[in-house]
Amino acid sequence: MTTATTTERIYNFSAGPAVLPLQVLEKAQSELTNLNGIGMSIMEISHRSKAFEEIIARAEKGIRDLLNLPENYHVLFLQGGASLQFSMVPMNFLSKDRSADYILTGTWSKKAAKEAKRVGPVNIAATAEDGNFKRIPRQEELKLDEQAAYVHITTNNTIHGTQWRKEPETGNVPIVADSSSEILSRAIDVQKYGLIYGGAQKNLGPSGVTVVIIRDDMLKLVPDGLHTMLDYRVQVENKSLYNTPNTFGIYIIDLVCQWIRDKGGLAQMERENEAKAKLLYDAIDATDFYQGHAEREARSLMNVTFRLPSEDLEKQFAKEATAAQLDGLKGHRSVGGLRASIYNAFPREGVEALVSFMKEFERKNG
Amino acid sequence: MTTATTTERIYNFSAGPAVLPLQVLEKAQSELTNLNGIGMSIMEISHRSKAFEEIIARAEKGIRDLLNLPENYHVLFLQGGASLQFSMVPMNFLSKDRSADYILTGTWSKKAAKEAKRVGPVNIAATAEDGNFKRIPRQEELKLDEQAAYVHITTNNTIHGTQWRKEPETGNVPIVADSSSEILSRAIDVQKYGLIYGGAQKNLGPSGVTVVIIRDDMLKLVPDGLHTMLDYRVQVENKSLYNTPNTFGIYIIDLVCQWIRDKGGLAQMERENEAKAKLLYDAIDATDFYQGHAEREARSLMNVTFRLPSEDLEKQFAKEATAAQLDGLKGHRSVGGLRASIYNAFPREGVEALVSFMKEFERKNG
Repeated sequence: MTTATTTERIYNFSAGPAVLPLQVLEKAQSELTNLNGIGMSIMEISHRSKAFEEIIARAEKGIRDLLNLPENYHVLFLQGGASLQFSMVPMNFLSKDRSADYILTGTWSKKAAKEAKRVGPVNIAATAEDGNFKRIPRQEELKLDEQAAYVHITTNNTIHGTQWRKEPETGNVPIVADSSSEILSRAIDVQKYGLIYGGAQKNLGPSGVTVVIIRDDMLKLVPDGLHTMLDYRVQVENKSLYNTPNTFGIYIIDLVCQWIRDKGGLAQMERENEAKAKLLYDAIDATDFYQGHAEREARSLMNVTFRLPSEDLEKQFAKEATAAQLDGLKGHRSVGGLRASIYNAFPREGVEALVSFMKEFERKNG
Repeated sequence: MTTATTTERIYNFSAGPAVLPLQVLEKAQSELTNLNGIGMSIMEISHRSKAFEEIIARAEKGIRDLLNLPENYHVLFLQGGASLQFSMVPMNFLSKDRSADYILTGTWSKKAAKEAKRVGPVNIAATAEDGNFKRIPRQEELKLDEQAAYVHITTNNTIHGTQWRKEPETGNVPIVADSSSEILSRAIDVQKYGLIYGGAQKNLGPSGVTVVIIRDDMLKLVPDGLHTMLDYRVQVENKSLYNTPNTFGIYIIDLVCQWIRDKGGLAQMERENEAKAKLLYDAIDATDFYQGHAEREARSLMNVTFRLPSEDLEKQFAKEATAAQLDGLKGHRSVGGLRASIYNAFPREGVEALVSFMKEFERKNG
């Protein structure tokens, strides 16, 4: 084994797994062989030890406090990513006689609807697939069913760079939301949601932990006979410790929550995220050389997607940006172009560096 | 955030998550903010990046080389632990018309059989529950079905401290094995197995990764219509990257495999594990003060379970051992007594320290 060379850290625009706060990484690094003086690594202690029980309780409280969760919401730390939630949600809430509404705003919501159809009837309440998911459906387009078990939305669409900036009105039907790529990036009105889920690897921590926030009354819908690991009731009753969870991932989530709290909480995160996104969107709008993929009203604060006049220029842009320590800007193949992912931990200075780079690139190639 | 105090590392007998090689922890620590000079942490890079592709390919090759896997075996890095495999195995291989044999040797094999019964017919080919799972069933006790899809065994029983030191003879029926608490601790005859699975948190790495080794012909049994994440064919086709895996966990597994290889591979691991276990079992057998839980022929090389003359003495032993930097020795509540888990990374010096402690404890209290 060789020792890493110590070059500087770069600006990392990866869509996920994504940049984490340097303070969190340094804290984890300082105690990786010896957690808080106990003589063992966080990776080496039982999930039922006192040391880990404190960590998972603090991680839960961190999410609770930041989102201001009412008591009737449970916080779970599961495995399998959002993709396994695509299946667990309908397994727990749907049946042959109980349907759900799905609003399609991109690749991930389509995948969620596909798994739901294996379990019960699915009503596609609206889709934005015309125009390659550039927009979020308007309220008057939604064909909602008042009897639905839930309305499923993807609150931020990582690939296309769109975001529900305000939840759809769903009456008495709870929203079930995949918030993988925006969770804890801003304050939300949690009461509208029956369940919120998200892979941790964008705003919360490393990959391999799925955070699920579930309103207690949703558990009444769960049928008997589900496989144990796929039953939300089991996970709630066992406080995420039915079996061994991803202990290291939960430890990092705890540290990330502390970091957000120390910065001023979700209101401050939202202000910073809005300011970062505005810098980039203003740069895009200032010239015809750059064209945003998403419609203005649907623009994401987390993933900024844009095109250049030609694919050759886009390739050149990504290559030169990487050389300038601005990494991970190549867009997803289903959209093309460039994508700047600027999650909570992405620093404003990195956005400013990208804006400067964009101006210089246009000057040379525009 | 505070900085950890730097006390010494202790001897950690935890049953899992368990001790890791200090060299692996120090390597991960040295590059936690900057992986191999790329300017990003292992936790911050895309699972589709070149840097991570190299890591997952090397982790797979590490397991392949150590186990000497033939080409017709696939290696997967999944999530959800052995507990989710309890469900995935029958979902993929059982049906209303195709049964499986389960041999019950402890808590975990009972749980595996319980999930299988949700899917199809299960034949309990033998159980060692009489006498609280002190032994492994003998070949002549097994009521095997020649038509079974597979025979399920738990190769090492963490809670009870027993181990299949030689696989049962199953004819043409493949063995499906939960090897969570012994995988990579010794060489095995892989050809007897249709599938081997294990949570990583004992011999392989941190919790949150499940290693699945699957023989190609087993995939023919998989029915259509399974939920995508639960379908082994999807995971094989996508080489564990259908969605974002636990990238950090896979990185540690890669380092652990390198560490085992550098030590001399599985033959050397087995020699060391046998020698460590012998030290402890000899100490137990040298006196009536200590009584092993498992029958001699069934004794595990990984988890050594033993009792003292009274529960009060057992409590006192665990407490004084912890004070002497010998941690995690309290037995599982379903067996009681003490348990010393001495996986690959547990050092021989720690076993020697425990043996000395045992002698001294008996001298004072015997």
